[in-house]
Amino acid sequence: MQGVALRAAVAGASGYAGGELLRLLLGHPEFEIGALTAASSAGSRLGAHQPHLPQLAGRVIEETTADALAGHDVVFLALPHGHSGAVAAQLGEDTVVVDCGADHRLSDPAAWQEFYGGEHAGTWPYGLPELPGQRELLKGARRIAVPGCYPTSVLLAMTPAFAAGLAAPDVVVVAASGTSGAGKSLKPNLLGSEVMGSVSAYGVGGVHRHTPEMEQGLSAVAGTPVRVSFTPTLAPMSRGILATCSAPAAPGLTKESLRSAYEVALKDEPFVHLLPEGVWPATAMTYGANTAALQVTLDPRANRVVAVIAIDNLTKGTAGGALQSVNLALGLPEELGLPTTGVAP
Amino acid sequence: MQGVALRAAVAGASGYAGGELLRLLLGHPEFEIGALTAASSAGSRLGAHQPHLPQLAGRVIEETTADALAGHDVVFLALPHGHSGAVAAQLGEDTVVVDCGADHRLSDPAAWQEFYGGEHAGTWPYGLPELPGQRELLKGARRIAVPGCYPTSVLLAMTPAFAAGLAAPDVVVVAASGTSGAGKSLKPNLLGSEVMGSVSAYGVGGVHRHTPEMEQGLSAVAGTPVRVSFTPTLAPMSRGILATCSAPAAPGLTKESLRSAYEVALKDEPFVHLLPEGVWPATAMTYGANTAALQVTLDPRANRVVAVIAIDNLTKGTAGGALQSVNLALGLPEELGLPTTGVAP
Amino acid sequence: MQGVALRAAVAGASGYAGGELLRLLLGHPEFEIGALTAASSAGSRLGAHQPHLPQLAGRVIEETTADALAGHDVVFLALPHGHSGAVAAQLGEDTVVVDCGADHRLSDPAAWQEFYGGEHAGTWPYGLPELPGQRELLKGARRIAVPGCYPTSVLLAMTPAFAAGLAAPDVVVVAASGTSGAGKSLKPNLLGSEVMGSVSAYGVGGVHRHTPEMEQGLSAVAGTPVRVSFTPTLAPMSRGILATCSAPAAPGLTKESLRSAYEVALKDEPFVHLLPEGVWPATAMTYGANTAALQVTLDPRANRVVAVIAIDNLTKGTAGGALQSVNLALGLPEELGLPTTGVAP
Amino acid sequence: MQGVALRAAVAGASGYAGGELLRLLLGHPEFEIGALTAASSAGSRLGAHQPHLPQLAGRVIEETTADALAGHDVVFLALPHGHSGAVAAQLGEDTVVVDCGADHRLSDPAAWQEFYGGEHAGTWPYGLPELPGQRELLKGARRIAVPGCYPTSVLLAMTPAFAAGLAAPDVVVVAASGTSGAGKSLKPNLLGSEVMGSVSAYGVGGVHRHTPEMEQGLSAVAGTPVRVSFTPTLAPMSRGILATCSAPAAPGLTKESLRSAYEVALKDEPFVHLLPEGVWPATAMTYGANTAALQVTLDPRANRVVAVIAIDNLTKGTAGGALQSVNLALGLPEELGLPTTGVAP
Repeated sequence: MQGVALRAAVAGASGYAGGELLRLLLGHPEFEIGALTAASSAGSRLGAHQPHLPQLAGRVIEETTADALAGHDVVFLALPHGHSGAVAAQLGEDTVVVDCGADHRLSDPAAWQEFYGGEHAGTWPYGLPELPGQRELLKGARRIAVPGCYPTSVLLAMTPAFAAGLAAPDVVVVAASGTSGAGKSLKPNLLGSEVMGSVSAYGVGGVHRHTPEMEQGLSAVAGTPVRVSFTPTLAPMSRGILATCSAPAAPGLTKESLRSAYEVALKDEPFVHLLPEGVWPATAMTYGANTAALQVTLDPRANRVVAVIAIDNLTKGTAGGALQSVNLALGLPEELGLPTTGVAP
Repeated sequence: MQGVALRAAVAGASGYAGGELLRLLLGHPEFEIGALTAASSAGSRLGAHQPHLPQLAGRVIEETTADALAGHDVVFLALPHGHSGAVAAQLGEDTVVVDCGADHRLSDPAAWQEFYGGEHAGTWPYGLPELPGQRELLKGARRIAVPGCYPTSVLLAMTPAFAAGLAAPDVVVVAASGTSGAGKSLKPNLLGSEVMGSVSAYGVGGVHRHTPEMEQGLSAVAGTPVRVSFTPTLAPMSRGILATCSAPAAPGLTKESLRSAYEVALKDEPFVHLLPEGVWPATAMTYGANTAALQVTLDPRANRVVAVIAIDNLTKGTAGGALQSVNLALGLPEELGLPTTGVAP
Repeated sequence: MQGVALRAAVAGASGYAGGELLRLLLGHPEFEIGALTAASSAGSRLGAHQPHLPQLAGRVIEETTADALAGHDVVFLALPHGHSGAVAAQLGEDTVVVDCGADHRLSDPAAWQEFYGGEHAGTWPYGLPELPGQRELLKGARRIAVPGCYPTSVLLAMTPAFAAGLAAPDVVVVAASGTSGAGKSLKPNLLGSEVMGSVSAYGVGGVHRHTPEMEQGLSAVAGTPVRVSFTPTLAPMSRGILATCSAPAAPGLTKESLRSAYEVALKDEPFVHLLPEGVWPATAMTYGANTAALQVTLDPRANRVVAVIAIDNLTKGTAGGALQSVNLALGLPEELGLPTTGVAP
Repeated sequence: MQGVALRAAVAGASGYAGGELLRLLLGHPEFEIGALTAASSAGSRLGAHQPHLPQLAGRVIEETTADALAGHDVVFLALPHGHSGAVAAQLGEDTVVVDCGADHRLSDPAAWQEFYGGEHAGTWPYGLPELPGQRELLKGARRIAVPGCYPTSVLLAMTPAFAAGLAAPDVVVVAASGTSGAGKSLKPNLLGSEVMGSVSAYGVGGVHRHTPEMEQGLSAVAGTPVRVSFTPTLAPMSRGILATCSAPAAPGLTKESLRSAYEVALKDEPFVHLLPEGVWPATAMTYGANTAALQVTLDPRANRVVAVIAIDNLTKGTAGGALQSVNLALGLPEELGLPTTGVAP
């Protein structure tokens, strides 16, 4: 628990992902927190932006530059997309650079071009250890692309089905997200007065940027191209994603064999919990935790596999998932320092 | 506007549907409120249950009996399922009896048996005037089955597509509902501490009782059996449903022809508003109003028609829809006394 | 509903107060809606800002100028403070000009200078008909200063006590407000992610601008200077104020005589409801209504009068109170067109 | 840090306080969790009640008996009031028994009789280490009375003022609490549909049971009887208390000397944070943490000391405060295993 601590820097420290990274790093036994950087809030104290982290309240935020981020063992980048590549290029090859943004997730430059625009920054190892074979790829990695929060939920929910060939490659996902998923941007539709008491849809019709990332991940698992119809909605809560995912069932699939496949696939996963039969996920189960609560069934009328999953978009969906991958990259125990209990009620 | 008022009784006056019926009746120019009845709260004053209705605070709730309900022009039944048939049988044939429960919605006794159990009470005219030809059936009706709140949303959202043959009969619906949809029952999972800050799934896998009602309605519109995979979720808000409905697009369908079909189908509907292109529904748009906010698009990647609709489950989804049908039954203007503005923010 | 309608203009139509004015005007039988004006949102359609008012969705917002506002019977100004005086000066003396902002509430220029700064715009008749003698002053008025939302709640709660000499002039008020009270301003602390699940204090220590307005009103009622210690808090809800007001009890005061004084004072008030003994207010009782729910008791341990009141800050606290005063000014029935039922749950 | 773990039992494990105790115990390095007991939920698995604690999901809840609780180093009692005394009497004198209920807080049997009724169970050391001299009393204690959640907030907020003689003994407190403070009881007013979007008052007029506890604590600090006028309100959030406390300022008090007294009093407190000047507390700052966020000022108009404090009612207000005292009782570091970062946003 002691010895020489690892030093971590957080770029984007005044935002929601940055705040969650810091909260988790404060609870991690191997890290000390080095540089905190940001763009427009550089020069102010962290306490003005993250008042729930009193230990760091007096720390001054620096501007995000390669100099400020140099000399750390791990650098977390929680930046708007398009900014991570340039910063990472200036950091040493031995530094573990963790991109919580979208820049290095997609392997297909055309998909990047279509959904994000601009030049593709290249592909980094994908920080979702629960994908088949992915843990091995993350061990020793020095560049990590943290998955999007929605793809994290959908890939965790549907991978066991596609890995076992139990569903046709035609997925429908409707997910509800807490507002922190939209970041701290000052948009009228994110005001409390607008979101409280209201659920709304956005990015409908195949246009949400997380769509190709879901398809990429599920296609790799299925070994065949998987299509995803994805509709995100905004729910009146700060945190949490509940994703309802379904796909046509493979011929002859029974409820029992479906559950059994999930049990086998998840039995050694430390963070993904298949709920007891008959219990369905609620985001409160995972509030502030690096866990996922998952349930699956067969709808015999519609002949579809239906999987529902809850995660905390900021924890397992961003900062916790990032730290889990960093643990693997650095040869630490995968679960080290990560919260496994939700804060409820 | 005056003359002899119509007298309305409300059975189930202490519940959420009953409260909403009374709120709307108080704003309706043609009704005076007669008997208020209930089961366990009989003998108490309405103010103890509906403190937002100060005009009726002192009214004493009677027990639900045929005697108490006799002598009214309209009787609204907001009772648990299985109770409406016996009550209605004792009311005069000239009385307009409006069942806000499930008893008289389904035409297939087997579906009733499978999803509700017990003897089927028979089928009454279905109180969704927006269905093709339904307005005519409601004119002069003396028995009305108010649709379920979820089916109201799904039928409004998908009827234009199926009426025009633009979608395959294989629908996936994921809907978020406010907690009032579950009624005032004292269940741990409905406590504020549990639902605030949390979205949860329930009734997954084709088992929710509103599923056969959706299939019945859409099948009639499509002229062919339609399957619905329905997943309801509970959102941290008191009121509102946001339903995301999708189905495979008919061959050759374009976004423009899809929108055009919806514009034509909805152009004379007083309560269903097709939003401007690019605007997606939020339940806040319809809070407390008898309106629906609807948007539709084609997802070209997944080749699906995606329609999203927002309603207030207590207003258009229950009490407002009931009153709209009663207006038709009594030959009053369909829109009379019904709120068309949401209460927002 | 018949004859020549009165024409009303709303300046500040894209904000929360403006939206509520429009919602109420749409339900008022004597008004038709004329010009809609604003500052930065001029040129856009109202539907982009008030999607809960589908009837007006296509109306184009004009810039707030005297020309745009001319030719109306009533002009509602829902503008940031400091802007109403100049606009009003250009409107005819026969026009009923209703300032929903702060400019014309205070009678003491020094208080204006201390709390708002800049030149005092002068004092208009105060739009709180429930104050002693105030109804008479509002009849025929052509300029009306709508009270602040917090002062509305506090004056309604404590006027009966001070009018009857039952409390010492040393009031402590702690009030919780929904976030719409802060308007649609894009501030980080008003983001949904920040306000959901959190109650916070602000403007503590006698610095909130509504403090001198409360003192002015209560002093006039008491006939002696009344001091108010006021602490506002922000609660996770869109609408509503719950104000807890207390003051030392007059010598010999009993619970019975206190209640009796309130009963007498409020017995003819159409919108202020003294709740049955033992029932305490909740903001949900008044959601969307022009009502107040009030309760009062004597705390015998601390020897204080404690009054708690709930209102909707946008309705009775702003737009509804404004319209109530306009009804009086124009000689219409005071209650005309004003909602008296809350939307609950 | 390892060696033989201490064994802790939790009676009332299916409730909210019990769940929070378990969450914290799971994160405490010195404890292993022994018996979990309850009343009506005995026989069921913990996962059915605390789904956010997946590590304990399969544990079976036993009935609360002395046998079940025997053989533990620490026994936490999270029971309805009136039940702790009998259970504690059957547990060994060496066992640390921690009563999270009210039974052993009050030293005045008359106050117990007036506010709770029945026989007084006796007084135990009061588990609020931040009170003057209290840490010493807790070291080695084998019986601990955990303070009420509201008294925790009020005593932390006002102790520095009364210890320094800066306020007159006449306190007004208005506090907003999240609904978990009311426990998991199935009451209609605690349903999500009722509490969302609504703030309500209850227990007004000096009748709330926490009132004499506040007076007892502040009187001891002040060395003179202190009166408290206390009004609790229920806010639409699951967790958190924001208490606004004020009292007449001592003659000649300045804002600077007031702040200075708080700075001195709190400079070594590990969990109570005096916020930077101008920053006011929000409950989100302390969500899930054993911390308090405090601010104080002088209202020069009303000449009152105004202190506002935020805590999490379940953490610092119940389970965290309990564990902090247990750490002291057992000679462990006071801060061991207690979360000091909030979960925000």
